[in-house]
Amino acid sequence: MDPRIEDHAEVLVDWSARVGEGDDVVLRVGPDAHELAVAVAEAVGERGANLVTVYDSNEVDRAYALAHESDFEENPAYELGLYENADVVLSVGGGRNTSEGSDVPAETRSAKTKARSGIREARLSTDWVSTVHPTRSLAQQANMSFEEYREFAYDAILRDWEALADQMANMKAILDDGSEVHLVKEDTDLTMSIENRTAVNSAASVAYDSHNLPSGEVFTAPHATEGEVFFDVPMTIRGERVQDVHLSFEDGEVVDYSAGQNEQVVGEILDTDEGARRLGELGIGMNRGIDRFTDSILFDEKMGDTVHLALGRAYDSNYPEGHEDEANESAVHVDMITDVSEDSFMEVDGEVVQRNGTFRWEDGFDA
Amino acid sequence: MDPRIEDHAEVLVDWSARVGEGDDVVLRVGPDAHELAVAVAEAVGERGANLVTVYDSNEVDRAYALAHESDFEENPAYELGLYENADVVLSVGGGRNTSEGSDVPAETRSAKTKARSGIREARLSTDWVSTVHPTRSLAQQANMSFEEYREFAYDAILRDWEALADQMANMKAILDDGSEVHLVKEDTDLTMSIENRTAVNSAASVAYDSHNLPSGEVFTAPHATEGEVFFDVPMTIRGERVQDVHLSFEDGEVVDYSAGQNEQVVGEILDTDEGARRLGELGIGMNRGIDRFTDSILFDEKMGDTVHLALGRAYDSNYPEGHEDEANESAVHVDMITDVSEDSFMEVDGEVVQRNGTFRWEDGFDA
Repeated sequence: MDPRIEDHAEVLVDWSARVGEGDDVVLRVGPDAHELAVAVAEAVGERGANLVTVYDSNEVDRAYALAHESDFEENPAYELGLYENADVVLSVGGGRNTSEGSDVPAETRSAKTKARSGIREARLSTDWVSTVHPTRSLAQQANMSFEEYREFAYDAILRDWEALADQMANMKAILDDGSEVHLVKEDTDLTMSIENRTAVNSAASVAYDSHNLPSGEVFTAPHATEGEVFFDVPMTIRGERVQDVHLSFEDGEVVDYSAGQNEQVVGEILDTDEGARRLGELGIGMNRGIDRFTDSILFDEKMGDTVHLALGRAYDSNYPEGHEDEANESAVHVDMITDVSEDSFMEVDGEVVQRNGTFRWEDGFDA
Repeated sequence: MDPRIEDHAEVLVDWSARVGEGDDVVLRVGPDAHELAVAVAEAVGERGANLVTVYDSNEVDRAYALAHESDFEENPAYELGLYENADVVLSVGGGRNTSEGSDVPAETRSAKTKARSGIREARLSTDWVSTVHPTRSLAQQANMSFEEYREFAYDAILRDWEALADQMANMKAILDDGSEVHLVKEDTDLTMSIENRTAVNSAASVAYDSHNLPSGEVFTAPHATEGEVFFDVPMTIRGERVQDVHLSFEDGEVVDYSAGQNEQVVGEILDTDEGARRLGELGIGMNRGIDRFTDSILFDEKMGDTVHLALGRAYDSNYPEGHEDEANESAVHVDMITDVSEDSFMEVDGEVVQRNGTFRWEDGFDA
């Protein structure tokens, strides 16, 4: 076995999920993530934890969803219980076709997502971590060869996470002390309140309230959003390439939108429920090990020189005691990314924190 | 998709498991059974049932078991609940190496099996059905080309199950009326009581208390076994080729054993627990669509011209009301097969029922 696969499994189980003896672990395995699943099973066994493996195939999901004509049952108890009783949920993605869900009608997807919101809640209440095994399908999505993509993926995943966590602590401190974020770039002039919010130093570990591997971002839950924002990084959302999205906000809600490609996908997301029209996340990418866009949100949103916003559900970890009931709720959480490497700045309470991608505490910062 | 895969899925979901609207279905998927899993997911969706997919990989199981050094936790609640709350469990086997478990120490396997006996019970309390997707690994095990093996497997699986069920009803009637079975062939002179037992017409459907696809056997739960039996059909048990097993019974228990190859595997099985030394099953193979041994118990034991006996756990369905507490209990259920096509006969209460493979009601039977 490629030793990087074993290293990936160790980082996932130890640094990210902190799996301990007797933990009840659910491992969700993509059809092409077999090798990583074997390495993770070994690491979980070594820690003396319990293991249930779930088969996570978008081809199976598509076949089931398209054939299912009656209403989806809400949160079937046998599946809900599995996640409610689990301590850790490790999702090891890796399918064979990232476009597999593209011919499932939006209303079917949305109905299934809504019917399963309790299961999602239960999963998000565990020490969950999502990662991917580098597959040929993900290499294709990234427009890279398989070998080159593997190098890229492991550069992003196998990092000195403690050192990166120290870097990101600077940004968290600024956001925790601040009350308003102002983002300016091409077609973008957006203000967001971050009052009564706690930023998360997302260092790819549940110990930091961080649930992605790789990670490398600092995120919070903005509210009272006003103004315009332009997302110039292309992404695949629900199997469709979405590009050049513009959103206009008033009183915290999207009041107008457009997109250069697959605009209807943005419309579907916004129509899911009330919370889908509000922001659930402002994230600042700080993983300089990720050096290019690969059309995968797990990697793209963590890249240095980018900022992303998510429509929909916010993470509980951004709400301090006494403010839990302010959390934005929704059945969706969809991230969109903007490149801030050029002609841009971000202010917190009127002070520039990042200009053209460079942070205040970095060499070359121009206030 | 090969239309036989869709036919296989339809037989599994409709004839075998009788999946209905709202049923909670667990689908266990082998790593190379993906295509059948997709077809089954479609059929389950069409019926309006719920679906949870479990990844069933012997490579994952091996890595976990070898790494796990502490005691295995007994029936972890999160996994137990999944099966306790399920209505249907469909196991769609299909791995990449049937010998994958061969280097897991016997005591580890046995400890894991024992610790999971409650989960096994819960699974066997559902409308469970086990089948296999024909894979290259199973073709290799059968010493056949992949294409030839697929023909073989679908000949066995895609049968007129109602017609076969009618045939098998003859045998069930004889066993239900009888009290003693006497089996005679080379190195074999065995008597078993079948008093107070109900035979199962195993027609590959839960409606017949039959849980294998393919099936095609009539089985009961013998007791008070006396004498000698010789199993001349080679099989792979726990990843090891086991051949030419002799067992001697006194008062229903194995008192002596030998094997021509991997004798220690038989010893390990017998040492699992008390019930492992007694018979849990007498089965009479009646699927004439299976025309050769393929070193797979799912197929071999159903073949016409064979009889098999299992050490260990009996099926509840063989015990009529008032006799439930006589069921042989064990953490194992291991089948062994003997060829009865030549120089053999089986009597029930002194009357010959099968001679040289031919049943009493068939042309060419020689009483």
